[in-house]
Amino acid sequence: MATMKDVAKLAKVGVGSVSRVLNDAPGVKPATKKRVEAAIKKLGYVRDDYARGLKTNRSQTIALILPTVWHPFFSEFAYYIEQSLYRRQYKLLLCNSSEDAEKELQYIKMVTQNKVDGIVGITYSAIDQYVSSNLPFVSIDRYFTEDISYVTSDNFIGGKIAAKELLVRGVKHPAFISGYSKFPNETTKRRDGFKSVIAESGLEMDEIYVPEPIENLEQLVDGLFKRQPSIDGIFCINDLMVLQIEPILKAKGIRVPEDVQIIGYDGFNLTSEQPLGISTIVQPVELMAETAIQILMNKIYDHYRPSEIEVLPVKYRNGNTTRPII
Amino acid sequence: MATMKDVAKLAKVGVGSVSRVLNDAPGVKPATKKRVEAAIKKLGYVRDDYARGLKTNRSQTIALILPTVWHPFFSEFAYYIEQSLYRRQYKLLLCNSSEDAEKELQYIKMVTQNKVDGIVGITYSAIDQYVSSNLPFVSIDRYFTEDISYVTSDNFIGGKIAAKELLVRGVKHPAFISGYSKFPNETTKRRDGFKSVIAESGLEMDEIYVPEPIENLEQLVDGLFKRQPSIDGIFCINDLMVLQIEPILKAKGIRVPEDVQIIGYDGFNLTSEQPLGISTIVQPVELMAETAIQILMNKIYDHYRPSEIEVLPVKYRNGNTTRPII
Repeated sequence: MATMKDVAKLAKVGVGSVSRVLNDAPGVKPATKKRVEAAIKKLGYVRDDYARGLKTNRSQTIALILPTVWHPFFSEFAYYIEQSLYRRQYKLLLCNSSEDAEKELQYIKMVTQNKVDGIVGITYSAIDQYVSSNLPFVSIDRYFTEDISYVTSDNFIGGKIAAKELLVRGVKHPAFISGYSKFPNETTKRRDGFKSVIAESGLEMDEIYVPEPIENLEQLVDGLFKRQPSIDGIFCINDLMVLQIEPILKAKGIRVPEDVQIIGYDGFNLTSEQPLGISTIVQPVELMAETAIQILMNKIYDHYRPSEIEVLPVKYRNGNTTRPII
Repeated sequence: MATMKDVAKLAKVGVGSVSRVLNDAPGVKPATKKRVEAAIKKLGYVRDDYARGLKTNRSQTIALILPTVWHPFFSEFAYYIEQSLYRRQYKLLLCNSSEDAEKELQYIKMVTQNKVDGIVGITYSAIDQYVSSNLPFVSIDRYFTEDISYVTSDNFIGGKIAAKELLVRGVKHPAFISGYSKFPNETTKRRDGFKSVIAESGLEMDEIYVPEPIENLEQLVDGLFKRQPSIDGIFCINDLMVLQIEPILKAKGIRVPEDVQIIGYDGFNLTSEQPLGISTIVQPVELMAETAIQILMNKIYDHYRPSEIEVLPVKYRNGNTTRPII
């Protein structure tokens, strides 16, 4: 019976190209596609889904690397990842990396030892060189290379929506507040999207944009409002930042949302039935988890599967930190 | 070299009794202890910690069964469990049981298959018959039998503290609000402790105490305050209940803490740096996690180890849902 290798040999292409054709993946030259298809026909190659998945020492276990599960967004994400795995009879190993690259590498090593079949990682550590295209690895919110699959919410659009929602609520002097990681990640696009809309509006904009971890947020906010007392709208990089900013403003006698309106990002809920009440850009957490596991399974059961990138839609959810539309 | 079995034979006791003597466990008759110690001396038995742990197919993995990790208390607990395991070079399998006994049994089965070495479980399902004294299992907040180890915070004292803290803050008409599980667990002692102090004080007390899940909390609270408008202090079974009660009272024009003071239980924080601000009874989550893992490891490395019970201290943390002491 013909194998994928036979097809590749006959078509004079790599096995990866055959896989790409079989998976209807983008980036295959029409000429290549034609040759591969001809070879498939000639050899009578039949794709054997079972054989593709045949690896006797599969652990039926996936590792999830998070900065920490002790965080409402990450715990919701971990919840959905586990649900998604359970439906596939897979188990979940949980790793709180605390951004410790050494710890993350232990889990990556477990893949090569067949102790886990793959990894979903929300990671802001220097592990670039260890994450290769061979590794069944799906990154969340961080781009490594084009060979590494990743899933993210549409951070740029999210930033744009936040700006628009503040503007239609009468904000005249917007500000952005965020820390940034030294490792590039998708969340910086929230700022880009926000700034693009504000720039179009012609309004003045200010920001607190400093390296993480932010030690002196209170002084930074104090300084910002002393310099720019007319600020009346804030977009925070995430909901936790909103929770940190609120008491600081309150202590300064600034009322939310009467004096300053605030929009966060994440849309996390304390439990499945307990939202926080913040006006926010909601990430589709359940969909992100399901998509990440689907992509990971594709890779585990088809080693030649090309990387996949999914940018998922976000939406605005009204809460108690903004005023009605004017 | 003499083994524990040799000691048991010579002393004419069971191996369990020898283990209990070696581990200085309670419940050993003085006569038994004397015989065992004599046998140990005569045989020159030396306890071999390494041999006790010798089991070639150890997985170095522990399963944590939680109702759901998507909950601030459970995610904090999961965080500390993983930290505690990591220090011992163990990995954590996470199971959100959603109180699904079938799912929990899968993990219990994994112990017998040597896929995991033991289980820490916060479980309110009907798994009694599957949790035996042979299983390396530590229960949190639920008592199965005296053979099953469990760790809990001091719920009774916690309830007493909540009552006392309300009383010293001028509460004259206290109430208790809680749902209850059909599976007996330690958290009901919060109510017992609270009631014991209120009974001593001679004050009238009311309560909402209904089976979980509570579908119609709003109507229940509404009915309670219509019948008993003088209620001015509430002890909620946990912090989430406080978060649910607050908006209901607000909608009724009842101010917290001016009109009604509220104390919760758990003391959870959204992240390691973000407390909630509720006045509450704080559980020692990190200590509970570390204690549970220590007890579990004792059992894994010493099969004959008797069950251990740890009731850990709680404390009151002042927040914004109570008034100053009068």
